[in-house]
Amino acid sequence: MSVSLSGKKIVIMGLGLIGGSLARALKDLDLGCKVFAVGRNTEVLAQALADGTILGWSTDAKDLCLDADLIVLCMPVLSIKQNLQALVPMLAAHTVVTDVASVKGAVVEAVIEVFGAVPVNFVPGHPIAGSEQSGYSASKPELYQGRKVILTPLVHTLPSAVELVAALWMAVGAEVLTMSVEHHDEVLAATSHLPHLLAFALVDTLSQQGTREEIFRYAAGGFRDFTRIASSDPQMWRDIFVTNADATVRILDEYMLDLQRLRELLLKRDADALFLTFKRANASRDVFLSFSKNQNSKHTK
Amino acid sequence: MSVSLSGKKIVIMGLGLIGGSLARALKDLDLGCKVFAVGRNTEVLAQALADGTILGWSTDAKDLCLDADLIVLCMPVLSIKQNLQALVPMLAAHTVVTDVASVKGAVVEAVIEVFGAVPVNFVPGHPIAGSEQSGYSASKPELYQGRKVILTPLVHTLPSAVELVAALWMAVGAEVLTMSVEHHDEVLAATSHLPHLLAFALVDTLSQQGTREEIFRYAAGGFRDFTRIASSDPQMWRDIFVTNADATVRILDEYMLDLQRLRELLLKRDADALFLTFKRANASRDVFLSFSKNQNSKHTK
Repeated sequence: MSVSLSGKKIVIMGLGLIGGSLARALKDLDLGCKVFAVGRNTEVLAQALADGTILGWSTDAKDLCLDADLIVLCMPVLSIKQNLQALVPMLAAHTVVTDVASVKGAVVEAVIEVFGAVPVNFVPGHPIAGSEQSGYSASKPELYQGRKVILTPLVHTLPSAVELVAALWMAVGAEVLTMSVEHHDEVLAATSHLPHLLAFALVDTLSQQGTREEIFRYAAGGFRDFTRIASSDPQMWRDIFVTNADATVRILDEYMLDLQRLRELLLKRDADALFLTFKRANASRDVFLSFSKNQNSKHTK
Repeated sequence: MSVSLSGKKIVIMGLGLIGGSLARALKDLDLGCKVFAVGRNTEVLAQALADGTILGWSTDAKDLCLDADLIVLCMPVLSIKQNLQALVPMLAAHTVVTDVASVKGAVVEAVIEVFGAVPVNFVPGHPIAGSEQSGYSASKPELYQGRKVILTPLVHTLPSAVELVAALWMAVGAEVLTMSVEHHDEVLAATSHLPHLLAFALVDTLSQQGTREEIFRYAAGGFRDFTRIASSDPQMWRDIFVTNADATVRILDEYMLDLQRLRELLLKRDADALFLTFKRANASRDVFLSFSKNQNSKHTK
């Protein structure tokens, strides 16, 4: 995958945390590619131009996308369809399009609705690099360093298109992996969507307690982490849960069975079984850390 | 509360994260109190003596507790009873005893079983300053800076005993509050025990998936936080859940109702209702941060 980004015209549609961080990383790398942005918030766009992150901007895709080599859609899942519709009349044959949404099945459906089929130059993608922060003001060039990006090309997707998108993410420091659309959505339902749902639910439950003020006042470490996760962008998460509902409910149901089991152990004061469960969770943490460590060491070489 | 700790003999029973951090903080403050430790792990005790954190140690309480002014029980809830039994024959009339356990009802019950009634010099206490780490090696003198300590004295507890324990925690940088035993256990069930249960359950559920390796490999931010919470000391948490089971199950049941509600919203793809829930969680986070900020600013004055 030795595709060069030099000379390439890259248009980032949506200059929030993800798009903004990508633009900043490309600017810092100085690879000779030309980065432009399309968005709605002219203040943010003007700021990105002023700070040298992008070469130009427009609120209208057709001003910039006609001769683009690569278009990166950086917006919540449910906003992708209308942005694709705007692109239909202007896509050159060579233009590669990718996205960054956390759900891939819904993106592929939107692409099919708009184009009739998934174009050979469309590469669904997902950088696993979110944060509870959002917006261009939270963006930073190092966001993708050591993070994973999952691409979910279809069987007929052009290898050259996949290579260009992979080159983009590797250039900004990420590790690129590919898997099927369905598998991506299952894995992310478990590792990202369910944890966020649990955090949103906990903050919601506790904030409706009569003693809410006290609960916040005495909140210990555990709850603090939950409130941070639950402060993530509501629109983005609404879109994720609406579009990945089935996979999320499947893993949620397994989780609720496990909660019911723990509830029984609590009522029975079954110290031994609780201890075993917590020991097992400890061991899993160690497995998780060993994966993280491998990942980090890979990137410090 | 201008009680001086100067000249006081303080015996810390259990030199783990909590007891070790207390000893280190007192040593750094150089208040003129004499700090000793009782424990089982002679290696840790010898190390604490060698690094100057304590003036002496023993594995037998009677070597140090006979003339103690203050004894601090720093051990998991279910270990408190047997340690109290060892203290019965040797407590001087003036000796104040306190503990640090996360559940106060069970501690009061243990005290009553051992002494027949709660002595006027016994002050149940709980520093909200845990971490997923444990043991003396994780202890640090700044652990209690800006943290809250809840004392739950009974109606007949001596004010002078409460003042001595409060002086101890304020000296090491904590804010001291008092509330009833029952209220403490309700509030902590919601803010600390339930979040830990949810984290243990999630790590447990996901580690039993067939795709466990992949799930750990692609774990995004949300799950990473859960694994960290779930790496907390299994014995301590077993004791907490066994002794605060009823309050935890009460708030767990409310939480599961909320999860059921979200599950229905997912299945209905009810974007508006999901958005409202997430917005509300965002707002709660802001409330929470405003409390944290007030707390921090209080401590930088």
